[in-house]
Amino acid sequence: MPKPPPPSSILLKGCSWIITQNVSREIIRGGSILIRDGLIEAVSKERIKARNIDLVIDGEDKLALPGLVNAHTHVSMTLFRGYADDMHLKEWLEDKIWPLERKLTGDICYLGALLGCLEMIRSGTTCLLDMYFYPDYVARAAREVGMRAYVSHALIDLMDRDEGLRQVGLAEDYIRRIRGMGDPRIGIAISPHAPYSCSEETLLKAKEIAEREGIPLHIHLAETRKEQVDFEKKYRLREVEYLDRIGFLSHRLVAAHSVWLTRREVRLLAERGVKVAHCPVSNMKLAEGGIAPIPEMMEEGVTVSLGTDGAASNNSLDMFETMKVCALAHKAHRWDPTVAPAQTVLDMATIGGAEALGLSHRIGSISEGMRADIILMDLKSPNLRPIHAPSTLVSHMVYSAKGCNVDTVIVDGKILMYKRRFKTVDERAVYSAVDSAVSSLIGEAA
Amino acid sequence: MPKPPPPSSILLKGCSWIITQNVSREIIRGGSILIRDGLIEAVSKERIKARNIDLVIDGEDKLALPGLVNAHTHVSMTLFRGYADDMHLKEWLEDKIWPLERKLTGDICYLGALLGCLEMIRSGTTCLLDMYFYPDYVARAAREVGMRAYVSHALIDLMDRDEGLRQVGLAEDYIRRIRGMGDPRIGIAISPHAPYSCSEETLLKAKEIAEREGIPLHIHLAETRKEQVDFEKKYRLREVEYLDRIGFLSHRLVAAHSVWLTRREVRLLAERGVKVAHCPVSNMKLAEGGIAPIPEMMEEGVTVSLGTDGAASNNSLDMFETMKVCALAHKAHRWDPTVAPAQTVLDMATIGGAEALGLSHRIGSISEGMRADIILMDLKSPNLRPIHAPSTLVSHMVYSAKGCNVDTVIVDGKILMYKRRFKTVDERAVYSAVDSAVSSLIGEAA
Repeated sequence: MPKPPPPSSILLKGCSWIITQNVSREIIRGGSILIRDGLIEAVSKERIKARNIDLVIDGEDKLALPGLVNAHTHVSMTLFRGYADDMHLKEWLEDKIWPLERKLTGDICYLGALLGCLEMIRSGTTCLLDMYFYPDYVARAAREVGMRAYVSHALIDLMDRDEGLRQVGLAEDYIRRIRGMGDPRIGIAISPHAPYSCSEETLLKAKEIAEREGIPLHIHLAETRKEQVDFEKKYRLREVEYLDRIGFLSHRLVAAHSVWLTRREVRLLAERGVKVAHCPVSNMKLAEGGIAPIPEMMEEGVTVSLGTDGAASNNSLDMFETMKVCALAHKAHRWDPTVAPAQTVLDMATIGGAEALGLSHRIGSISEGMRADIILMDLKSPNLRPIHAPSTLVSHMVYSAKGCNVDTVIVDGKILMYKRRFKTVDERAVYSAVDSAVSSLIGEAA
Repeated sequence: MPKPPPPSSILLKGCSWIITQNVSREIIRGGSILIRDGLIEAVSKERIKARNIDLVIDGEDKLALPGLVNAHTHVSMTLFRGYADDMHLKEWLEDKIWPLERKLTGDICYLGALLGCLEMIRSGTTCLLDMYFYPDYVARAAREVGMRAYVSHALIDLMDRDEGLRQVGLAEDYIRRIRGMGDPRIGIAISPHAPYSCSEETLLKAKEIAEREGIPLHIHLAETRKEQVDFEKKYRLREVEYLDRIGFLSHRLVAAHSVWLTRREVRLLAERGVKVAHCPVSNMKLAEGGIAPIPEMMEEGVTVSLGTDGAASNNSLDMFETMKVCALAHKAHRWDPTVAPAQTVLDMATIGGAEALGLSHRIGSISEGMRADIILMDLKSPNLRPIHAPSTLVSHMVYSAKGCNVDTVIVDGKILMYKRRFKTVDERAVYSAVDSAVSSLIGEAA
């Protein structure tokens, strides 16, 4: 018997609450959402009358929220979770991470990406921006799982012109191949690794490709104090000033980390329309000092999104955790509990991520005409009770909710998880394939 | 048909891993645990041959860990979760929390405690130290659920001698009543609220009662900078110096928060055997400045345990989250990733909590002769994969695990949750009772 086709229309009927994240940040008590051909066709407090609905999901005791966007990760590094912790960055990279990375293959990156995608779905992330190696294999994993993913190859030339040309050629090749997949959920970005690891030529070529292809440009920026200090010594300019002078800054740029910035650098980012992917958990764990000047970015009008970074440094890909730590970190740092309030943080993880990827017309809110990237939270959970007023729900999403409160995940109108069961992947098969890959790579796995 | 009696013997058979937290911090790969009459009778890598076992639980793909100890909370405040956030402490207390607290009754505190206990069990906490009002009602909730709980009444006299006598009388009355319950899992503590809110007489009377009854003495200490500054202005002594001078410090004392301390104060705590209950999430969210000098406490030999504080300020009771935030906060604060390493943090949440309560001979590790407070983590979860080596598991517990990875919870040999289902309480009944209570207290509930 042939497998039935996936439902092309889904009615999320009578959701207890909908946090729309639309322009007026409307919260609907008791409402339904009609999804057809991957699109949100209707969002209404009234009963939605529609014919030919393939699937009706009961929304009682459920809260619908836009799927979360993880705007900076290295998803294949999920394989390295817990392999090395509590170490200084230099030793961590040189003694632990880089030796492993030299042994990576496309197949291993695929398995790491598969594991990371499972973790992200379980915790309500529906879209990611990835920077690593073998992006075609990462794309393959994301396609199999059904996530919305922007993948990219990390360009590193260490100021070697020939290597720069080779890396750019490789990236162009990946762009062709991934475009060739023809999957509307899979996008590609172009990612010079960092200002200190790429030559001016490579940076500018990457920007040119981003413009030509209309794709995001992604980079690591000012992650540590040492990086800025060393850069300034060498270039007599701070990183953002240098990038601006060479003409690299662009509204397509998603700058991960962006910790060690002056107010002048923040202003430059704002003026050029650069988006920031803030990674508070990874920054705190690697503990290279400082905390990203998010309040200043907000003041200057920079769009801020949130990322987990890789599981090697985080060691989790749970965006609910990242939201809470983001709020805590800025409040504590400024001795001011009014900093990074719940609504602002929720915006970063939804609309902010969509804007970073140039997708705010397609995802990031539950509104008619948007793609259906929606998660349902199970409100029959002690940690989400009680609900005093609609505004409590935003607080709950940022301060109380955990990834495990996610019951159902829908991406582009397709169900990836329902009642916490994966619908597109055999999770046990992933775990055992990952175990084998890890034992061949490192030597021991459970 | 009569309900069958609960199993008096349980075999956790063939657990994939056991993190014992015993003196040598042994991690056992493939082992079994025999529980009889609430006691851990055997822990072994070998097959345990025992007759008359009432229940066998398959430990495949499970990791056994000592139940976590929440060493400072106000569990009834779970009712106030999300009611007021992102506010300065003074307004938060005066405009939001205190007006609600004036309306509390024993029955309402009971419901809040019930909800909080459900959340704690779900996230692997098996024992708590509570300070609030109506401790007999809190005890009733903990008994019904089956948690190990030390409850207490917050003594506040605001330097009024008569009020102090009345409060101490009340506390003595609670001690008698709760002792009278005769439940070995329910303990009581005596809790002068803080050095600034209690007279010397009340503080000393509380200590005297703690000595006489052999129970924990619990207090809020140096939670904010303003508190220390104001105290020093008034008393010409810092809080710990004052408490030492009046003879209040004791090995029975569990000092919550302990943020604004000098090295000299830390030394005094160490010399007097005082235990600290560190509450990093609440401290960061209320953002009154500073971070507890945990590395200095470790250097001086102070026993440190972890607490969530109440859900009104946290807004979660998940000790896995508290462990991760603890590690992140200290690393980031010191610009040093080697601070607060995984094993140290796991110790705080298990053995540290047991020591704070004077229970290290009974709980905090999985060893023969200890009470059976054990949780099983489900390793078939993407966020706990892969496992590179036994040491990865400790990292996973602190940096990757979430409360929702807890599959089974056993307290004193009794199963409170199995395959994530509560075995002692009807959770839906709790939610609806809480909703009614909240709507009568505040005016709106879902």
